[in-house]
Amino acid sequence: MDLTIRLKSKGGVDKYPAKSHARRFREKLGINSGIIVAAGTKNLNWPNSDMPAPFRQDRPFYYLTGCNEPDCGVSYDVDKDKLTLWLPPVDLGWHQLVYYGRGSTVEEALEKYDIDEAQYIKKDPSEADSGAEVSVHSVYCKPVSGRPRLGLFKLNAEDEAILSQQNASKPDLLRRALNACRVIKDEYEINLIRRANDITAEAHTAAFKGMHSFGNEAEVEAAFMKTCIARKAKAQAYDPIAGSGPNAAVLHYSENVAEFGKGQTVVLDAGCEVELYASDVTRTIPINKHKPGHWPSKEAEQIYKLVEKVQESCIKKMLPGNKYIEANWLAHHIVVEGLLNLGILKGDANKIFHAGVSTAFLPHGLGHHVGLDVHDVSPDPPPPAQATTSEVDRLREAYIRWKPEAGSWASELSSLENFAIGPGWHTSLSGADAPVLEPDMIVTVEPGIYFNPVLLRELLKDPKRSQFVDEEVLKRYIPVGGVRIEDDILITKKGYENLTTAPKGEEMLNIIRESARKG
Amino acid sequence: MDLTIRLKSKGGVDKYPAKSHARRFREKLGINSGIIVAAGTKNLNWPNSDMPAPFRQDRPFYYLTGCNEPDCGVSYDVDKDKLTLWLPPVDLGWHQLVYYGRGSTVEEALEKYDIDEAQYIKKDPSEADSGAEVSVHSVYCKPVSGRPRLGLFKLNAEDEAILSQQNASKPDLLRRALNACRVIKDEYEINLIRRANDITAEAHTAAFKGMHSFGNEAEVEAAFMKTCIARKAKAQAYDPIAGSGPNAAVLHYSENVAEFGKGQTVVLDAGCEVELYASDVTRTIPINKHKPGHWPSKEAEQIYKLVEKVQESCIKKMLPGNKYIEANWLAHHIVVEGLLNLGILKGDANKIFHAGVSTAFLPHGLGHHVGLDVHDVSPDPPPPAQATTSEVDRLREAYIRWKPEAGSWASELSSLENFAIGPGWHTSLSGADAPVLEPDMIVTVEPGIYFNPVLLRELLKDPKRSQFVDEEVLKRYIPVGGVRIEDDILITKKGYENLTTAPKGEEMLNIIRESARKG
Repeated sequence: MDLTIRLKSKGGVDKYPAKSHARRFREKLGINSGIIVAAGTKNLNWPNSDMPAPFRQDRPFYYLTGCNEPDCGVSYDVDKDKLTLWLPPVDLGWHQLVYYGRGSTVEEALEKYDIDEAQYIKKDPSEADSGAEVSVHSVYCKPVSGRPRLGLFKLNAEDEAILSQQNASKPDLLRRALNACRVIKDEYEINLIRRANDITAEAHTAAFKGMHSFGNEAEVEAAFMKTCIARKAKAQAYDPIAGSGPNAAVLHYSENVAEFGKGQTVVLDAGCEVELYASDVTRTIPINKHKPGHWPSKEAEQIYKLVEKVQESCIKKMLPGNKYIEANWLAHHIVVEGLLNLGILKGDANKIFHAGVSTAFLPHGLGHHVGLDVHDVSPDPPPPAQATTSEVDRLREAYIRWKPEAGSWASELSSLENFAIGPGWHTSLSGADAPVLEPDMIVTVEPGIYFNPVLLRELLKDPKRSQFVDEEVLKRYIPVGGVRIEDDILITKKGYENLTTAPKGEEMLNIIRESARKG
Repeated sequence: MDLTIRLKSKGGVDKYPAKSHARRFREKLGINSGIIVAAGTKNLNWPNSDMPAPFRQDRPFYYLTGCNEPDCGVSYDVDKDKLTLWLPPVDLGWHQLVYYGRGSTVEEALEKYDIDEAQYIKKDPSEADSGAEVSVHSVYCKPVSGRPRLGLFKLNAEDEAILSQQNASKPDLLRRALNACRVIKDEYEINLIRRANDITAEAHTAAFKGMHSFGNEAEVEAAFMKTCIARKAKAQAYDPIAGSGPNAAVLHYSENVAEFGKGQTVVLDAGCEVELYASDVTRTIPINKHKPGHWPSKEAEQIYKLVEKVQESCIKKMLPGNKYIEANWLAHHIVVEGLLNLGILKGDANKIFHAGVSTAFLPHGLGHHVGLDVHDVSPDPPPPAQATTSEVDRLREAYIRWKPEAGSWASELSSLENFAIGPGWHTSLSGADAPVLEPDMIVTVEPGIYFNPVLLRELLKDPKRSQFVDEEVLKRYIPVGGVRIEDDILITKKGYENLTTAPKGEEMLNIIRESARKG
């Protein structure tokens, strides 16, 4: 029986494994009856315009179909193990066909996607068949708003009102189960992220090669984008960041138009998608008109080498069974040690760490999952052993377990802000309660050191932290702007594999130098 | 008094003329009291994502401010002739500042924009000042949905409910008055469209220069986009279209990933924005691996030359006082004549024209206004002289006035579909009732001839039209795919000026040839 369906659905190594995703989803939900429904994104125009707004497929829908076409839906009949793709009405009309062409027909969809069945959405709900199918079908006959939906329906429920109610009560349950599936990547998904990384590496390299001739951020982005578009990977996992000088310290800067001026580095944080799967890669490139491929100052080189050391050390911790947050703490310890060596900080390393001084230089988390979203979903943490223990307490306990000799200092760890890693951090990869790393997770490791005026101002006006800063030395480093290095790491059974092939460090510098020599 | 205000608002040739736009708007509305309010676009994330969705500033807001920053508003106090820009709250919080930086401060806004006053939107409505200002201010204190708004408020109205009601009843009136302003461009706007055209011309030329080495659509788009991004014009007026082979006949195709295969032409329809003002330019490039810069077939060359003739003839009609629809008709007459000469059509030219046969080859209107929107707003037609006359009758009468000798044939002009030019055509530039061309309008002239399978199938199964088609000859032309040529034309006091500087025709072919020679 199972084999028959596989043959029917034409699943195979060359197709996105939608059917297998639907089955994993069913397993995680722990259900054996009902119909799972997800609506894809609709094509919409910009407000007050006849021009289409950018289209971004709903991720849950894609995970269950592998279909990047607009205005579709999917249903998975859990009892029958039947995956059905719902396509836009068969009669699309003159304007759509002549201006945009049409998406897949039923026949093409069966050929392209790992599904059991494809159907056209009927325009008129009254045309729907009778019985159980009516309920699912009627979902797609009704006008679907721009906001994607995910729902679970009871089989054979004929009353639309009951269906809607169930739909409304389940989304959180569904989302959690789906996240738990998505966080562990299968071979097909790993391969897409690998391909995205390969194109991204080529595009970063194109930027290195042109660097000796560039005078502004726009030219860096142009070199990057040209390669992605020519390699048919125009869709970016996020807005490319090409921030030079002070812009290198604005974490999600995306204007990318400033002239280099006296800037010392350009942070190029850019990664394309391949079939909706993200790559997320950052390289920091020296700006040096007179000596391309060399750091323009001792300070820039020192900061780069420090970030390099942090990254290499943390990548080595990406092992199954490890907690990601421990790499986060390790990063901050190395940053403190490094800034002490440079004289930017002064005093006791442990005191500095626990006062949270390093978060003024490294204000973001060390990384996140990568997948269909660049900041991919994280699995929910297991329920806390003692429900009475606060998050802060659990954080402190985890830290002491990791670094027992710091126990006395850890008692000073009274504020979560000291390890702030953005909103929602406690449910993220870097949360104290996050599940340990497992094989086939893909995570970024992206330490940075920034000289951001907002953060430095806050640091210096807080006496608890400013006592550890040597302002005179700090001043010399401010023109460095910022440095970040980021790779995508696949957790394997025995260790890890770095999926990011973009050159960095000396290899990157050599490419710039050689290209400059050739002119 | 007027002068004082100008000095205060720091208006000048180097600033976007927001104040002058507000005054024109007031004049068109014919009001001398009240407050005009427009909300800019808010920054939003993609649904179910922590990544920002693309931002596109609301056009009415931009027209009144010249401000491309998110989460702002504008109010224009008609009585006091005072233009106020409302900026996001002064205290943006840590996350916004460190991740995205902040937009203009009040001081920076006064420096940058042609406004009288800048204010921060307060987070709490209770903080608002008392009196008339409350009403306007409270608009911006309330959460603004993603949908931009335009409103007219009575001065000194203190009841919020009354304000909302007035706001809701006026949008159509406001939109019409604003459209009437926007359709006539001032010098500053013309200059922006000129600059957009210059960058676009450079980007098209980059595609020509690489053409001999390209094997697919993606490489054409990549060459185009690289130039735009490097020239700091990353924002496109519309999704670039690089359609080859059969894709050249899909009017708004934008996948841009197909291999050339046996394709004969690539239609490159792409134009960047400069400060939100559009360029809209199409070039059709020969695909010819063996002889770059030469048409790959006699048929492709014939169709290109025919479209070229149509375009040149129609551009000459872009004179003040002319009706645009007459150029539309002229285009169809030349297409009919040309297709007769090639043998694709057979029979009487006038009969063919009036049967609407040419709309199967040229299915879209000849052009549209260009401005803040690529399909820019059109002014409303004047009220029809006789309210009892139908649109079809007025269309027929206009046609007979234009071409008296065709009067007998024109009586057969019974269906508007014969001159279908897309939805909303009757209020567009190509409508029979559209006002005549005026100096400082900017319009496209973009004829095309396509061999689109959907349209040809419809043509051939309609005996009223298929009788004029020689199917055997037609078959030879189908592989041409499609040809379109498009320029942006400024109507001047005495004639017109072609703002589009991208090479076309022989000049384009020579660039491809020369670049191929150099390798």
